[in-house]
Amino acid sequence: MDAPEQSFLREKSLAVEDQELAVGTLEDSHAAKPETNAAIELPNKSKPEKSAVEKDREDFREAVVKTLDRLLFVHKSFDIYHGVAGLYDFGPHGRTVELNILSLWRKCFVDEEDMMEVACTALTPEAVFNASGHVKKFTDLMVKDEVDGAFHRADHLVKSYCENRKKDPTISAENAAELDKVIAHVEDLSAEELGGVWNHCSTAPVTKNPLSHPPRPFNLMFQTSFGASGSLIGYLRPETAQGSFCNFKDYYNLNGRKLPFAVAQVGRVFRNEISPRQGLLRTREFTLAEIEHFVHPEHKSHSKFSDVAKLELLMFPREEQEKPGQFAKRLCLGEAVAKGHVNSETLGFFIGRVYLFLIRLGIDKERLRFRHHLANEMAHYATDCWDAEIECSYGWIECVGIADRSDYDLRAHSEKSGHALVAQEKLAEPIEVEKLAITPEMKELGPAFKGNQKNVVEALEVD
Amino acid sequence: MDAPEQSFLREKSLAVEDQELAVGTLEDSHAAKPETNAAIELPNKSKPEKSAVEKDREDFREAVVKTLDRLLFVHKSFDIYHGVAGLYDFGPHGRTVELNILSLWRKCFVDEEDMMEVACTALTPEAVFNASGHVKKFTDLMVKDEVDGAFHRADHLVKSYCENRKKDPTISAENAAELDKVIAHVEDLSAEELGGVWNHCSTAPVTKNPLSHPPRPFNLMFQTSFGASGSLIGYLRPETAQGSFCNFKDYYNLNGRKLPFAVAQVGRVFRNEISPRQGLLRTREFTLAEIEHFVHPEHKSHSKFSDVAKLELLMFPREEQEKPGQFAKRLCLGEAVAKGHVNSETLGFFIGRVYLFLIRLGIDKERLRFRHHLANEMAHYATDCWDAEIECSYGWIECVGIADRSDYDLRAHSEKSGHALVAQEKLAEPIEVEKLAITPEMKELGPAFKGNQKNVVEALEVD
Repeated sequence: MDAPEQSFLREKSLAVEDQELAVGTLEDSHAAKPETNAAIELPNKSKPEKSAVEKDREDFREAVVKTLDRLLFVHKSFDIYHGVAGLYDFGPHGRTVELNILSLWRKCFVDEEDMMEVACTALTPEAVFNASGHVKKFTDLMVKDEVDGAFHRADHLVKSYCENRKKDPTISAENAAELDKVIAHVEDLSAEELGGVWNHCSTAPVTKNPLSHPPRPFNLMFQTSFGASGSLIGYLRPETAQGSFCNFKDYYNLNGRKLPFAVAQVGRVFRNEISPRQGLLRTREFTLAEIEHFVHPEHKSHSKFSDVAKLELLMFPREEQEKPGQFAKRLCLGEAVAKGHVNSETLGFFIGRVYLFLIRLGIDKERLRFRHHLANEMAHYATDCWDAEIECSYGWIECVGIADRSDYDLRAHSEKSGHALVAQEKLAEPIEVEKLAITPEMKELGPAFKGNQKNVVEALEVD
Repeated sequence: MDAPEQSFLREKSLAVEDQELAVGTLEDSHAAKPETNAAIELPNKSKPEKSAVEKDREDFREAVVKTLDRLLFVHKSFDIYHGVAGLYDFGPHGRTVELNILSLWRKCFVDEEDMMEVACTALTPEAVFNASGHVKKFTDLMVKDEVDGAFHRADHLVKSYCENRKKDPTISAENAAELDKVIAHVEDLSAEELGGVWNHCSTAPVTKNPLSHPPRPFNLMFQTSFGASGSLIGYLRPETAQGSFCNFKDYYNLNGRKLPFAVAQVGRVFRNEISPRQGLLRTREFTLAEIEHFVHPEHKSHSKFSDVAKLELLMFPREEQEKPGQFAKRLCLGEAVAKGHVNSETLGFFIGRVYLFLIRLGIDKERLRFRHHLANEMAHYATDCWDAEIECSYGWIECVGIADRSDYDLRAHSEKSGHALVAQEKLAEPIEVEKLAITPEMKELGPAFKGNQKNVVEALEVD
């Protein structure tokens, strides 16, 4: 497929996506039937002709989805009440598959790597997510159709606008580059940064109604409250990790105050997605199997790295993604760490371990790649991140995220809670440090500052 | 212990309970430290002298709780932020115990009894709990301290008042009987039924501040909302069963449209308890392992009942509990069903199966009894219910509830959703029914009703 054709398809599929988004919103707010049907019909009309390969792929996917639904592997929750977008139940076969996967996961990680498995609550007091940054940063920018009240993701609208603008043949190279930059970073721009571009996106994609201005951040956590007064705010966890971080000191003590150690959790997490769609890919409640591996910040080597160093896997480093027309290439994991594509042996070890787990699960290794996050793509807590992506009928889909969160979380919770979530190191040799110290001569200070000498001494003691 | 001594202890322990309730509320609303401490000190002063046995039991319990906490079997969630009452985490050992119990449960029920295990979502749209009755009936009546804003359970206050009144030696026998009746039914009285008695409970137990009037029902489900508009209300499930009921027709079809069959679920459930306390006994989030067994309403015999009919277990039928001074007695399960203590073989089979499971889990059979619910004690959906209770340092504690919910849930969801959640039966022999039918003679009706004959015919067709 040549570039213009790709761009055309891209644009059409974005239009379809926005349309589906609108449909999702309508379904959410129980719109009357005719309105929903009208919204559903439009994208079909605007859908581009599909290639034979694409058509085959979609037919296959549709057949699989129907079979999985009919045999109750996975089906819409509370369907007799038309359900809610993004909620799915597992029937007997689906649940069996899930339990088998979790059992293998436990074997490969908890048992073979000698981890602690714990279970924290999903209900979480507000203070925890204030400290972790989720209350402020776990958001999507949203705008509202001023007439029908439907909500739209601002980044989707801006991206769609930029893609359209770029097709204008009279556009200058400078402007085109500017648009490319916006497209690449769109998910991470603040309302202010969207700035000028946003003024061009002032009408809703289908209704053409005016949109609220400026875009507002919408938090993706489900909120609730504890007790009868309703004043104690709580959230449903969007990841299991915060429980592991808050209990760090307890786990560290239980581990004999030694690093490294790892804490595993399997449990339900909840995300109030604005446009849940594509079956199980973006649901509002799902099971997450998560590991927090705590390591000395200056010794990120891993004693078992040699077990995985010779694995050759499809990797897609950041630098490669930034060049046009590049694809993931088979790289030796040891080399990827040595060359600095992967920031440490520990991160490399987990990439290898995830690879082995997924292969053992039956994933085709030709359709499994590890993609480096671009600098602007990483979550607010990450300093480095690789995704295990599996190629399926939806394209390359993130299935596992492997991030170096550095001390972001432990530091944040230490500061906000007042409990030092730190490890202590016994040094083989004491480290001697020469330090310049001020020793005030009270005999001299007294007469010189006449009664103020105490303040002077205190000021001198401040480092 | 003689009766007055028991009554004294009861009264004291109720006072302590109310006090603890107040402390719980203060902790919830992050009261300043001194206020909390003052509230905590009071009950210690009013605590009665304890017998040596009670003292031993409490010391033992305290030691166990401390050990479980220290070894992270189970500990307060988010403790670095002082947590929220009623939330507990399982550390590595606790989680291992939990996984082992669930594994045995799966073996004993799902595998050996050939059940479907499914997994529905915890997030549930409002319509489901409107139909199930939970929005209206899963409530506690609450009052509010008009000055400090603390909430109190009305039934606790009324019970405490009645217990106090009964100690008045001048009270008439008639009044005493009336008070006993209130005490026995207090948890099930509506705000109106509390009526006269409530006027005597107009001040808060510790602060003596005035209380809000009348008591208002407080729903014990955690509420949240879906999507950006916030208009689509959702609740966190307080039991897993509603998902199984809503999907009944799908499971029935998957089972080849045959009854009976059973659907099992293991998952987290959430209850916004007003006064969570006593460690793990009344928490706001916990794992529930639940089975819904669907059976022909007129054939509640069970093909495997003979496997458990000879079991002899401690049973405490309703009639026995209503006589003073009675205890659970060893009964043969077959006899308990034959005599009508247990309403069907199916309910009896599950009582036997739960007994075998708990014994296999290591519960002492001398400290395991099955207690029949009193008529006023049953949940809004139950027609019969037995609790498996285990005697521990807190007394006899409900660990498993085994209820005949009849067709309450399926009928409710059929009515509200418009989907008939019914099973169909193929009869060996067709049943012939003679039915009286009205056949209107249009020739006669026309002239007689002159143009209104259509209405008359319609009226005649109504059953």
